[in-house]
Amino acid sequence: MENKYSDDVIGRARVQDTPELEAYYKELEGLGAGALWTVANDIEPWEPRTSSVPMLWKYENLRELVLKSSDLVTPEQAGRRVVYLVNDKRKDVSAAVGWLYTGIQVTRPGESTSAHRHRASALRFIMEGEGGYTVVDGNKVTFEVNDFVITPNSAWHEHGVAENGKTCVWQDGLDIPLVNALEANDYAVYDGKQPLQAPTNYLPLSYGGAGIIPADKVWDKPYSPLFKYSWKQVYPALLEATKVNEGSTFDGIIMQYSNPLTGGHVMQTMGASMQLLPAGFKGKAHKHTGSFVYQCAKGSGYSIINGKRFDWKERDIFCVPSWAWHEHHNASNTEDACLFSFNDLPVIEGLGLYQERVYSDNNGNQILE
Amino acid sequence: MENKYSDDVIGRARVQDTPELEAYYKELEGLGAGALWTVANDIEPWEPRTSSVPMLWKYENLRELVLKSSDLVTPEQAGRRVVYLVNDKRKDVSAAVGWLYTGIQVTRPGESTSAHRHRASALRFIMEGEGGYTVVDGNKVTFEVNDFVITPNSAWHEHGVAENGKTCVWQDGLDIPLVNALEANDYAVYDGKQPLQAPTNYLPLSYGGAGIIPADKVWDKPYSPLFKYSWKQVYPALLEATKVNEGSTFDGIIMQYSNPLTGGHVMQTMGASMQLLPAGFKGKAHKHTGSFVYQCAKGSGYSIINGKRFDWKERDIFCVPSWAWHEHHNASNTEDACLFSFNDLPVIEGLGLYQERVYSDNNGNQILE
Amino acid sequence: MENKYSDDVIGRARVQDTPELEAYYKELEGLGAGALWTVANDIEPWEPRTSSVPMLWKYENLRELVLKSSDLVTPEQAGRRVVYLVNDKRKDVSAAVGWLYTGIQVTRPGESTSAHRHRASALRFIMEGEGGYTVVDGNKVTFEVNDFVITPNSAWHEHGVAENGKTCVWQDGLDIPLVNALEANDYAVYDGKQPLQAPTNYLPLSYGGAGIIPADKVWDKPYSPLFKYSWKQVYPALLEATKVNEGSTFDGIIMQYSNPLTGGHVMQTMGASMQLLPAGFKGKAHKHTGSFVYQCAKGSGYSIINGKRFDWKERDIFCVPSWAWHEHHNASNTEDACLFSFNDLPVIEGLGLYQERVYSDNNGNQILE
Amino acid sequence: MENKYSDDVIGRARVQDTPELEAYYKELEGLGAGALWTVANDIEPWEPRTSSVPMLWKYENLRELVLKSSDLVTPEQAGRRVVYLVNDKRKDVSAAVGWLYTGIQVTRPGESTSAHRHRASALRFIMEGEGGYTVVDGNKVTFEVNDFVITPNSAWHEHGVAENGKTCVWQDGLDIPLVNALEANDYAVYDGKQPLQAPTNYLPLSYGGAGIIPADKVWDKPYSPLFKYSWKQVYPALLEATKVNEGSTFDGIIMQYSNPLTGGHVMQTMGASMQLLPAGFKGKAHKHTGSFVYQCAKGSGYSIINGKRFDWKERDIFCVPSWAWHEHHNASNTEDACLFSFNDLPVIEGLGLYQERVYSDNNGNQILE
Repeated sequence: MENKYSDDVIGRARVQDTPELEAYYKELEGLGAGALWTVANDIEPWEPRTSSVPMLWKYENLRELVLKSSDLVTPEQAGRRVVYLVNDKRKDVSAAVGWLYTGIQVTRPGESTSAHRHRASALRFIMEGEGGYTVVDGNKVTFEVNDFVITPNSAWHEHGVAENGKTCVWQDGLDIPLVNALEANDYAVYDGKQPLQAPTNYLPLSYGGAGIIPADKVWDKPYSPLFKYSWKQVYPALLEATKVNEGSTFDGIIMQYSNPLTGGHVMQTMGASMQLLPAGFKGKAHKHTGSFVYQCAKGSGYSIINGKRFDWKERDIFCVPSWAWHEHHNASNTEDACLFSFNDLPVIEGLGLYQERVYSDNNGNQILE
Repeated sequence: MENKYSDDVIGRARVQDTPELEAYYKELEGLGAGALWTVANDIEPWEPRTSSVPMLWKYENLRELVLKSSDLVTPEQAGRRVVYLVNDKRKDVSAAVGWLYTGIQVTRPGESTSAHRHRASALRFIMEGEGGYTVVDGNKVTFEVNDFVITPNSAWHEHGVAENGKTCVWQDGLDIPLVNALEANDYAVYDGKQPLQAPTNYLPLSYGGAGIIPADKVWDKPYSPLFKYSWKQVYPALLEATKVNEGSTFDGIIMQYSNPLTGGHVMQTMGASMQLLPAGFKGKAHKHTGSFVYQCAKGSGYSIINGKRFDWKERDIFCVPSWAWHEHHNASNTEDACLFSFNDLPVIEGLGLYQERVYSDNNGNQILE
Repeated sequence: MENKYSDDVIGRARVQDTPELEAYYKELEGLGAGALWTVANDIEPWEPRTSSVPMLWKYENLRELVLKSSDLVTPEQAGRRVVYLVNDKRKDVSAAVGWLYTGIQVTRPGESTSAHRHRASALRFIMEGEGGYTVVDGNKVTFEVNDFVITPNSAWHEHGVAENGKTCVWQDGLDIPLVNALEANDYAVYDGKQPLQAPTNYLPLSYGGAGIIPADKVWDKPYSPLFKYSWKQVYPALLEATKVNEGSTFDGIIMQYSNPLTGGHVMQTMGASMQLLPAGFKGKAHKHTGSFVYQCAKGSGYSIINGKRFDWKERDIFCVPSWAWHEHHNASNTEDACLFSFNDLPVIEGLGLYQERVYSDNNGNQILE
Repeated sequence: MENKYSDDVIGRARVQDTPELEAYYKELEGLGAGALWTVANDIEPWEPRTSSVPMLWKYENLRELVLKSSDLVTPEQAGRRVVYLVNDKRKDVSAAVGWLYTGIQVTRPGESTSAHRHRASALRFIMEGEGGYTVVDGNKVTFEVNDFVITPNSAWHEHGVAENGKTCVWQDGLDIPLVNALEANDYAVYDGKQPLQAPTNYLPLSYGGAGIIPADKVWDKPYSPLFKYSWKQVYPALLEATKVNEGSTFDGIIMQYSNPLTGGHVMQTMGASMQLLPAGFKGKAHKHTGSFVYQCAKGSGYSIINGKRFDWKERDIFCVPSWAWHEHHNASNTEDACLFSFNDLPVIEGLGLYQERVYSDNNGNQILE
């Protein structure tokens, strides 16, 4: 029923320029207007079209420079001491992929930042160090390597590392490019340190296993009351799942960090997952709308994105643009590999824009370019 | 603004009988009708009114009789070999309190029941034994003492104990009286054993900690995809909560078993909680709509219900009727006590019928009758 | 897969009494307990079971008695001057069918009642008169014949008829039996008249056509912000629908009164509909859970309920119990007939208890007994 | 608590360039990275920042050119014969304001377009003509001046004018720029004409007044089952509202076109409203996030946007960018004026990005620049 991919069909613009039309276009331009058929085919693509390219950032290349930033600037000068990763085709909006920002932040023992907040949402994934903490709306949360922490839209937040800790490095993920594009971002600086509202590592609503919620507490915010998802709970959960869950052809054993009150994404604009590729796992290829930033949390492997291979190991970061074919492979036949990722799926799904296509040729795997 | 509790006010029926009226009433009766004012004050009570009485069932009295049932009847004869507990004022509907049924079921090693299903929902709380299991819609779940298991509305289910297990005793909770009263119950027998849909202890949607959900699974049922809530996860969660959560004046540290996809009750008609009364805990009194059945899961203590004291220890079962004043006390100053309970709150809350009142006299504690 | 309707199958209780068992039962009884297998088959019916019987109340028989009540008692004495209709099998709970109460209320010109409220919800369907009004939470609404008005759970309400009006008669529908059964009802009398919050016939959220909502208003109540549904809008809507909608085999053109903010029922515990049976309409039979009270708003016809024919014309009231076979017929080949009805579907659906069965024999129509 | 609008505070980036830093930046750039503090203040604005400017398009200037397009190109050549209106600062994305596209389409009697669909959503507001129609997913809807019609995400749609009609002109609104930016748009051409699924002017779910919904129909789409909102219903509703509703200080009597099943916006990505400014109405100023395109449907007046006055009369189109101060005034003291508008509020609200600020100086009205 569909006639695909050629503009030479009824329903597409196929007007030839004439002197008369050119005069007409000029006249329209003078009135802040134009003829739709001159741009229609361009603004109505046959398939989703991304402006981002797949990229991989090797941590071994970046780590020294990230640490060096702590010699070059203080947190007070920098606001946040962060090296951000930018897509070759999205430099204009400082995005790593699509409308997602990511960066690598370093904090030394005894350092702490002042508190601020913004309409954009933020998340962290911990890469190195000991004694790090964040304070979100008065709730202090300590974290360890591979923990996942959220800082939702408009929550006051600040970070630091204990005096007796070790230099902490973590990945920041923010939707700043999106919220700027939607012309809705703002920013405020907190005057001083936030007073703590609760004991350290208090989470507003859950203190234990799945489905266990304080019966006498109320939570009316549009984001998860769990501010931290600990690796020491997530990794065992993935291992347990391998015993009973055959897993996804594309993603192995994949767990979404979710809001236990809704089963949905942790925040209104960004979601995140952790996936385990069992030893020897060879994923199939598919593509879908939505932009993704990955970090390897454990092991090593490679992803093939739009026909090109990207090899990654622990702490490497890479991105998969919207509608790019992609597949993930564990390089080891003996050890599992884990990929953390965050995405803009709450936006894409929430606005009715999600679609997926499975790669059907070549037994489901791409042919390398 | 309210004129309370006397029927001698404008707005209440205050009609005196006369011969003329009596003739009138007779005439109405012949037409399947009546005069509202003859029944209005009775059917419009000033405050919620229960027909149940508080009751306590001591396990030490019942245990021997429960076990004896396994000498008297076989599961095949009995359908289910259960001693049910019945409220002195609810014998007509076989309810323990309000519209809730409860019973104690015994299964010997090697025994198993056939599968059936009903519109009424069921839950179990494990009291004794080893090697017990249930199969819910093809998902086999093994359980241990103090585990909580659900069998939702219309799910096929069957139970058993492994050959090498030990005699299992558990408490059943069902809303059979409610679903019968709502004229909606049904029943079907499965022809044979259910084929297993998944490995043992597979739960349809979660395999680990709070907020960790398989990203590639879909669940569209109106009840929790967690069929089992293990004591070995729940009790540590309660202990962890005592570190950061001051707890409820009425209930100590109370955790609701919840559906991780909604933050709501585990099933559409019954909810359940586990609460920990810290050593020395002396609860305050309140009353609210909704009926509750409790079982002591750990320790000992007493509850004061409508001015009467009920002492309980591990495995004892008691009930709190709707709108009855109640308060809970831990009898020990050194050990915590835990109370499991189930209730009809999804009905009461869902229909807009919940209300609560705090006991304000005598510093919040009832005076014993 | 199901073995239906005989208790002589595995999965049903089939225990024979013995002296030993009788002694055992006695012992259990002394402890507030019983053996489930002695009651199991009774409390676990194969299909939904109602205790109500179909009934028809002819308005021509009742009208005179209803009007006579205004000679016999004053509104002040009676609270509300109402003749209630009671099911032969539900006299203990003053219900017309299932857990639904209905009555016929009469108010003379210049009379008004005092304000009260209760946890039970109420609705009205206007039968006769001019100049009637109700005040719901400070919103005064005037009504005409065949208008439908709601008085939700815990809303203050009072009624009256203007001095220059004509005696008004309306049908009341309440869930008092249900809310009493759920042990949650309460009652309060307002001291004096409610002050009006808004101009007469102001409705909190909609003032016109479908899908037109004041953009600057907020409504956070669990019931419809439309307190009145006018016949002069509803009947044309039904007529318009007949042009494009083939209608239901069972119900003709049936429109649910709905909450425009949710598309759901008008209140949390009762729903209502208006249906038009086109001239010559012969409905098919089905049965489902949920209890229904009907009033004929226009025309005449008959319903066959569980094999028995009930003839109705304008203002007659009848009921269909849960799980009763029923079918509706328009007696006229030239005029349409309209049936108003209210029901407990929000309860039955909300608790997951709805089921339906289509009558398949005899070309879908029952054979009269 | 907030220190506003100066970057010279703790929490903002305040790093001075040095040769060492410049070398560092170069090194980062080579790795696809950068130092956050070099862009932080720019990408984290203190307040929402728009790239659009307020604009007004006078219909008297455009009308002739719009009609002329029907001499210059055929619908077959053009796909759609539309003059689109483009913001001076959003030409790169063909948007009228923010991420919203708008255009003016002309169709002559007897013409019709072929059917297509796209992930972007569309809406129409009818400006001139008779006999126009649209077909949305097989539902043919005829329309008249000032009617509002939706074509949701991925619905097949085509338009035309009856042979005996008059040339029709309507405004199109689409979120093409947004869906392109989110890298999710697609396009498909229908091979031939859609077969009609239902009688003309059948709407899938409502046929009449507010809160009247076919009880036997199901609708599971994420957009309104009302495809058309008729001026002949909307304008009387506005007039009726003026009797009981004091209206908004900013917007007069404003009605949102809503989904009767949710009370929410008509589509997932665009909302729309009609507002009536009573005779003599002088609105107050406020600003909020979200982009708006207006068309004057009746009367005349002016809006002050960011201190600049824009005079409009029937059929003129103008826009208000995100976070721009704006206020609306009716120019007449005897006749009401009506403004249609559409917006991206479903996106802004759904992602948690809505905020508003009231203009407090000068008694709430802006001072003209």
